[in-house]
Amino acid sequence: MRKLELDFAEAGVDALLVQTLPNIRYLTGFTGSNAGCLVTADGQTTLFTDPRYTVQASEEFAGGETRIITKHRMMALAAVEHLSRRRGVRIGYDPAATSVAELRQMEAKLPKGAKLVTVEGVVEKQRQVKDDTEIALIRESVKVNSAAFDATVRKIKPGLRESDIAAELEYQQRKKGASGPSFETIVASGPRTALPHAHPTDARIGPDILLLIDMGASRGGYASDMTRMLHLGRPSAKVRGWYEAVLEAQLAALDSIRAGVTAGSVDRAAREMLKAKGFGELFTHSTGHGLGLEIHEMPGIRAKDKTKLRPGMAITVEPGIYIAGEGGIRIEDTVVVTQNGCDILTPTTKEFVSL
Amino acid sequence: MRKLELDFAEAGVDALLVQTLPNIRYLTGFTGSNAGCLVTADGQTTLFTDPRYTVQASEEFAGGETRIITKHRMMALAAVEHLSRRRGVRIGYDPAATSVAELRQMEAKLPKGAKLVTVEGVVEKQRQVKDDTEIALIRESVKVNSAAFDATVRKIKPGLRESDIAAELEYQQRKKGASGPSFETIVASGPRTALPHAHPTDARIGPDILLLIDMGASRGGYASDMTRMLHLGRPSAKVRGWYEAVLEAQLAALDSIRAGVTAGSVDRAAREMLKAKGFGELFTHSTGHGLGLEIHEMPGIRAKDKTKLRPGMAITVEPGIYIAGEGGIRIEDTVVVTQNGCDILTPTTKEFVSL
Repeated sequence: MRKLELDFAEAGVDALLVQTLPNIRYLTGFTGSNAGCLVTADGQTTLFTDPRYTVQASEEFAGGETRIITKHRMMALAAVEHLSRRRGVRIGYDPAATSVAELRQMEAKLPKGAKLVTVEGVVEKQRQVKDDTEIALIRESVKVNSAAFDATVRKIKPGLRESDIAAELEYQQRKKGASGPSFETIVASGPRTALPHAHPTDARIGPDILLLIDMGASRGGYASDMTRMLHLGRPSAKVRGWYEAVLEAQLAALDSIRAGVTAGSVDRAAREMLKAKGFGELFTHSTGHGLGLEIHEMPGIRAKDKTKLRPGMAITVEPGIYIAGEGGIRIEDTVVVTQNGCDILTPTTKEFVSL
Repeated sequence: MRKLELDFAEAGVDALLVQTLPNIRYLTGFTGSNAGCLVTADGQTTLFTDPRYTVQASEEFAGGETRIITKHRMMALAAVEHLSRRRGVRIGYDPAATSVAELRQMEAKLPKGAKLVTVEGVVEKQRQVKDDTEIALIRESVKVNSAAFDATVRKIKPGLRESDIAAELEYQQRKKGASGPSFETIVASGPRTALPHAHPTDARIGPDILLLIDMGASRGGYASDMTRMLHLGRPSAKVRGWYEAVLEAQLAALDSIRAGVTAGSVDRAAREMLKAKGFGELFTHSTGHGLGLEIHEMPGIRAKDKTKLRPGMAITVEPGIYIAGEGGIRIEDTVVVTQNGCDILTPTTKEFVSL
């Protein structure tokens, strides 16, 4: 169990409704698929879940009360009803994590004089900076992921389908200790590498082709994320030029990371390098994102994100360029911000490997 | 692309905002991870997504306009802005699929005289009854899933870890043609079978143990769902008694299915059988659920669901009993409702197999 970092008085609330599963897992350790959580100013944490998880909740959550609610009841409503005897209670909720339907049900059941108060992203902000336990899990997740990549690369050869490679990558992740992939594994070959989020197809890969693999493992609930490019046969000078440009952008972004700089400045480091190489227009997404219990967390490594990086933030660095109908290149590591730089967790080589 | 079944005049709207990814995939075919969709009364469908999916959207969605929006802009807001020149437009939205934050942003940007109108679960209701294309995909998904189960069962032996078995099941799903599991594979052994939603652990399975496998494949976007029990060594008379009771309950539920009966009556058929056997209290969840593009869809096969079953509805039938600290039994098939009964898609034997 973790302590919620919230100044209740300053937020103007007596209790905070915590709604998303990763937030609930972070605070309580509970890993079920249906839950709500209420933290009160006096430090009490109450977990709400349904009867499928009675035993699991008792195994995973200590340090607070668990209330078992019928499965089809809204957890947000159960939380409000839990406070039914507290007249005038001020309940914080996150408008981004609360549906309009939930809000309406809560409003209808509020205790006398009680009110609902908007409190945005408290747990998400707390989750940005990982503690040692979390960093150790992310490190393990990265290690497992790279080991699965290494074990699979040896087996890649012309004639395999993208989906065969994805199957092998995920199998190896499991065998190395992951509970599964942390997102849908991307294996794209040839012109399909130009799709930043391609689904693996049943297309068989040719003997002379560019291959993009974007994969992450989930271990102890924590995500890793890595993208590597391979080439079956020798890449053309053009493709090598693309690769070099993206690699330089990735290294520039990595080099710009340290405590105190903004997320936006890391994005700029990659973007300016690609602009200088004449590929600025082809870099159509942001440079990276935080990761942890979720594959996409705060901060966003993008132009407009002014978050100051802090030691313990885990982020991805993954610039890429995409030429429709031709191909694309992306190179991605998972790193942890330190006082004077960053710790690049991903051990996999960034040489442009030809198979 | 599918036509939205909505009487706009009756719903009192000129346009419907469609918000969840499965709903959007159902209507447009688009499979990206970030999208919004707007359908207007004149039958025009507009898809909103971000630049990562420019190429993919053009490949997957024909028959309407695609608008590329910056990734960090709310799709709901983009949809409202798309209608900015339509004074007085009435826009339908689903309060269960819309966050409070989205509603507030939409309200702030509404065109003059326009209003937001609650329209609940239109696409979800339409999705309950599957068309022939969908049933064919669910059938394939079930087939792939059972083939993966068969290929794995042969390899199960004492000393394997639950997580090894899960890895093999998912690998075989992929090899047989799935894009991945349709939910987190459950492999639980011994007393852990009493946890309806157990995560596979690194525990090695003993030589004389009950094993629960609950697995589903995803194929062409469509889910399957199956639970089978195995026993390493010979099960005790007590465990065989549990198994027989759950099997009879499952068969009773299957037998009760036909067009026109309520979802609740199917739940009752299973529940009454287990009650008659003295296990009523131990059946702590509902009898099943619809499935399709999502693993859990409408209708719920539970006491209070009054939905009348219709031909083409795809549902699971999965009664179970759970004895904390001892073990649990669940048996589950995927079926499609027909006029006079149901088509049990799952081909896997329901004999209580001893390995």
